[in-house]
Amino acid sequence: MRYSKLFPKTIKEAPRDEVAINAKYLLRGGFIDKLMAGSYTLLPLGKRVEQKITQIIREEMNKTGAQEILMPLLHPKSIWNETGRWDKADEVMYKLKKDDKEFALSFTHEEIFLDLIRKHTSTYRDFPVKAYHFSTKFRSELRAKSGILRGREFLMKDLYSIHTSQEDLDKYYDEVRDAYLKTFERVGLSAIVAEAAGGVFTDSTTHEFQVLCETGEDEIIYCSGGDFAQNVEIAKVSEGKPCDLGHGPLKRAKVIEVGNIFRFGTSYSEKMDVSFTERSGKKQFTYLGSYGIGVTRLIGTLVELFHDDKGIIWPKEVAPFDVHLVHIEDKETEPWVRDIYKRLADSGIDVLWDDRENVSAGEKFADADLIGIPVRLIVSKKTGEGRVEWKNRDSEKTETLEVSEALKKLKS
Amino acid sequence: MRYSKLFPKTIKEAPRDEVAINAKYLLRGGFIDKLMAGSYTLLPLGKRVEQKITQIIREEMNKTGAQEILMPLLHPKSIWNETGRWDKADEVMYKLKKDDKEFALSFTHEEIFLDLIRKHTSTYRDFPVKAYHFSTKFRSELRAKSGILRGREFLMKDLYSIHTSQEDLDKYYDEVRDAYLKTFERVGLSAIVAEAAGGVFTDSTTHEFQVLCETGEDEIIYCSGGDFAQNVEIAKVSEGKPCDLGHGPLKRAKVIEVGNIFRFGTSYSEKMDVSFTERSGKKQFTYLGSYGIGVTRLIGTLVELFHDDKGIIWPKEVAPFDVHLVHIEDKETEPWVRDIYKRLADSGIDVLWDDRENVSAGEKFADADLIGIPVRLIVSKKTGEGRVEWKNRDSEKTETLEVSEALKKLKS
Repeated sequence: MRYSKLFPKTIKEAPRDEVAINAKYLLRGGFIDKLMAGSYTLLPLGKRVEQKITQIIREEMNKTGAQEILMPLLHPKSIWNETGRWDKADEVMYKLKKDDKEFALSFTHEEIFLDLIRKHTSTYRDFPVKAYHFSTKFRSELRAKSGILRGREFLMKDLYSIHTSQEDLDKYYDEVRDAYLKTFERVGLSAIVAEAAGGVFTDSTTHEFQVLCETGEDEIIYCSGGDFAQNVEIAKVSEGKPCDLGHGPLKRAKVIEVGNIFRFGTSYSEKMDVSFTERSGKKQFTYLGSYGIGVTRLIGTLVELFHDDKGIIWPKEVAPFDVHLVHIEDKETEPWVRDIYKRLADSGIDVLWDDRENVSAGEKFADADLIGIPVRLIVSKKTGEGRVEWKNRDSEKTETLEVSEALKKLKS
Repeated sequence: MRYSKLFPKTIKEAPRDEVAINAKYLLRGGFIDKLMAGSYTLLPLGKRVEQKITQIIREEMNKTGAQEILMPLLHPKSIWNETGRWDKADEVMYKLKKDDKEFALSFTHEEIFLDLIRKHTSTYRDFPVKAYHFSTKFRSELRAKSGILRGREFLMKDLYSIHTSQEDLDKYYDEVRDAYLKTFERVGLSAIVAEAAGGVFTDSTTHEFQVLCETGEDEIIYCSGGDFAQNVEIAKVSEGKPCDLGHGPLKRAKVIEVGNIFRFGTSYSEKMDVSFTERSGKKQFTYLGSYGIGVTRLIGTLVELFHDDKGIIWPKEVAPFDVHLVHIEDKETEPWVRDIYKRLADSGIDVLWDDRENVSAGEKFADADLIGIPVRLIVSKKTGEGRVEWKNRDSEKTETLEVSEALKKLKS
């Protein structure tokens, strides 16, 4: 795509009220726009990153045998009353009344999923069911100072699973834990699974997927050997204590939570009477699991972790484009860059081509650094016809290559 | 995918309060579930149809040079006050208050788009901008008796374009009209472009995309030669009057509106002060266009048009699967069907395989007819090893083919 046509262009300064690095760079780079506190539009660049992340999550969810659905966002009060969360989660929920009926906006979907299940299942043969959706969540956060790390309106992938036994739930829970770790790895993140409290979701212990990051709002105590991690909110051991398995002293670190998984057992099913008939004819309650990944939060986390003082450095798998093609303006070299753009595009490579006129080379380089596409290719008189200067976003090294060599390198 | 794993299975009877054919068949087939009046979950089969439609729309929108974004659903009152629609559209809008702040749920996005534009543009060089999103709309319809044809919460693709002149808007408006006709054609619909009134959107005349259908809620007066069509709400001519171009008498027919396009000119931009600096340095207001396709409504329209007394008949392009593979249960033929399923899947064909045990052939055929996948392939002792019985959903004719022949036919 031609950068001259992309909406919008980069901006020089982020709004003063934005303190988080993710918000600053995403706003300046033209990935997001802020509608109000905690609420952002995904602009074309941001939407592209979101679509890549969404596709990776979708693939990993499908591998676990989960099926994609889409549940509504506006929910009747009656369903939330069945579990008592209409009152219990009052602080975080957006509620409204229209024509004397009361509704809540989706802050999560356990109740809606269970309502769906009790209408469409009856015997043990109908289980397990594993269904997920990508949809909008609304949570009235007191603070909304962390950019898209903590929105009041945000995108989430939530998966729900329902089983006829605790063992079957446990087995799938472990499968999802592995699928989540794989998902985070694919988007470029190394996540630590930490035990945590369940908040308005459950009284049981849950697991959070935490990414080490100095600007994170959470803290964990963990073993670098990977055998222990707890959110400090529930940790009964402290930093420095030796790990039981001999991996040295436990560490304490700031982290960003990118996902969480819950094992509810029969607690919700009992309240909503979601049961099934066993082979023996006996009625039993079902076992619920719930699993979430914050999609927009992942975008913010990537920026918090992968940036320098010039801008974002996207991991290859989720970058908005594969290549940032910069043309140093010159009538003579214009046919060269057109030809190179065409060759790249024809090879299935996603190219952002900075074709702007009357913009200096320095400004184009600064914008390329801010936007953070992994590979920058420059076409200029200096590089010569049919050749490009290759530079990775995360390195200072440059090399001049034949276009065919660059193509081969991009495809590898 | 194995039908034994698909959630949920077909149901024998639709809920009594559903009168529309689309709701009855979509509910019975397991495409949707009803949360409350006017609000449905897309189940795995329904989600698949939605994804196919979404992808077609996306491709046609991208061809017009429009860029995909995602705007928030919860909007501050202040923005809606700028155009006066906080009051004017009160009846249709869902409004809420949280921590003393007032919000509306998205019933459309003109205001939000214009706010975005005024923050990111200044001179004529920044125009035109064409951006679209797929997102949820909330409209408090008085009646919600038409299944997913008229939801209170539904999916829409809305596109907005903004220009520096009426001519440029007009040019793009015509481009979008053509892209819409192409889109409807690709999903299997033949749409008529009819003039209509603008409702809470505009006082000017707008264009609706109407599909002839006896169960439609709208009516048009139109010429079958294609040179005239108006919604009866604004039509000043009547049925039977000869068409000006000699195509015979005008007809009157019931229709379903599947899309609409609006030319607002500068009316909204003036209210929200969305302007730009001309080459001459003079300040001018921008010209807005807005274009919508109801995605969930399209699903409903397809069912209203393409069904028989046994169930749905999906057009190939949007069917949830390419093939419905039915195995007539038998230990001996089980390896046959496994092999055929694998060969189809390996060739990139999406197969729904009815692998259920203890379900009669008659029941499997009835479910296949209800679900409406275009091609049914039967594997049984009668067809023989390596062979299948082919039947199109819309025909009674069957033929027995070698799997390789069936594969070739599916690929053609």
